[in-house]
Amino acid sequence: MRISELSERTGVPVATIKYYVREGLLPAGTRTGATQATYDDHHAERLRMIRVLREVGDVPVARIGAVVAAVDGVREGDRPLAEVLATAHHALGPEPGHPHGSSSSTARTEVFDHLRAKGWLIRQDAPALDLLAGALDALRALGEGTPPGPEIFDGYADTAAAIAEVELASVDPSSGASSVVEQVIIGTVIYERALVALRRLAQEHHSTRRFGPLRDDATT
Amino acid sequence: MRISELSERTGVPVATIKYYVREGLLPAGTRTGATQATYDDHHAERLRMIRVLREVGDVPVARIGAVVAAVDGVREGDRPLAEVLATAHHALGPEPGHPHGSSSSTARTEVFDHLRAKGWLIRQDAPALDLLAGALDALRALGEGTPPGPEIFDGYADTAAAIAEVELASVDPSSGASSVVEQVIIGTVIYERALVALRRLAQEHHSTRRFGPLRDDATT
Repeated sequence: MRISELSERTGVPVATIKYYVREGLLPAGTRTGATQATYDDHHAERLRMIRVLREVGDVPVARIGAVVAAVDGVREGDRPLAEVLATAHHALGPEPGHPHGSSSSTARTEVFDHLRAKGWLIRQDAPALDLLAGALDALRALGEGTPPGPEIFDGYADTAAAIAEVELASVDPSSGASSVVEQVIIGTVIYERALVALRRLAQEHHSTRRFGPLRDDATT
Repeated sequence: MRISELSERTGVPVATIKYYVREGLLPAGTRTGATQATYDDHHAERLRMIRVLREVGDVPVARIGAVVAAVDGVREGDRPLAEVLATAHHALGPEPGHPHGSSSSTARTEVFDHLRAKGWLIRQDAPALDLLAGALDALRALGEGTPPGPEIFDGYADTAAAIAEVELASVDPSSGASSVVEQVIIGTVIYERALVALRRLAQEHHSTRRFGPLRDDATT
């Protein structure tokens, strides 16, 4: 297809598609003339992933480059799928040095050891460990009483494991390795937003049940 | 206590405390002399909430003002607790106009109606509805096949409801209305980060179980 059709199918403007090609996020189309190139389904699939990362995940273009490089790594077939998935996942952030990524090394070691002891197969360099350790640091900074250990998150960990098991079970490995990675990354970003939103709404619901009622004019 | 002790107890620098007082986020201390003022536990509690909102929730100072105003609303006793909680919650964002807060009005109406039909007591102006509707829009933009409806999030909604029920059950209403609101807001922000981190780690774990193994050198 031409670039105009690719733009229409994916909802990404032509100028933005050209920018992604220049930045190396998207392979160039196949030249069909001096000023024309043709694009295929693979370009459309890749563009959809980039769009979700930008618009839903708020991931900076530079980090999208790292996700794309991981996806292309599996395409070249030189790395195991789980390894590529982890690398793509890690590229989602938080970036080293970002305030969300800062945590004490004590808390980081504790949460890693705790999850490994539960049997979780995770890498020590996972950026999500910084997010989790930062949450533990924040709870400890609230002071008062015995400082909590990583087991304070156990209820959330069990819930997260149940969610992730269902999510990974729905991934179809027969669709090809790079497609699997794209599916997982898209699912990670979109359903993360949905889960955060639903927890906030559910808190509103249960706080109204316990402490309510909301005023009628506000709920209708 | 003096401002220096308040700073030490909360981990917030003196200059930052003064800035929060100027911005109206924190009530001024009680004057005890021409250049001195004294602060109490209420100031410390408020500062801890502000710190969590800034450092963990990444909430801009202007929006923290709205959270604080909601908390002070309940202190003045003129509004029901659930109403104040909802207002404080909504102030967490996303801000109107923020890319994360943009969604189609069709999707927004659909997710609201769907959750209300499930019996959720939520307000139509909840910003989390924009987050959720944006996730639905993103799934639809992926195209291919029948466009999903809001029921695609039902599994996540049930999980979120179970989490929120436990969270709200642990809130102690006897500690006073403004303290309840501060507890809920702090819990919302810190455990949201923990849940997001744990889901990503659990995905890594289950993807390794399904598609693994990770290389040994990476997991130890």
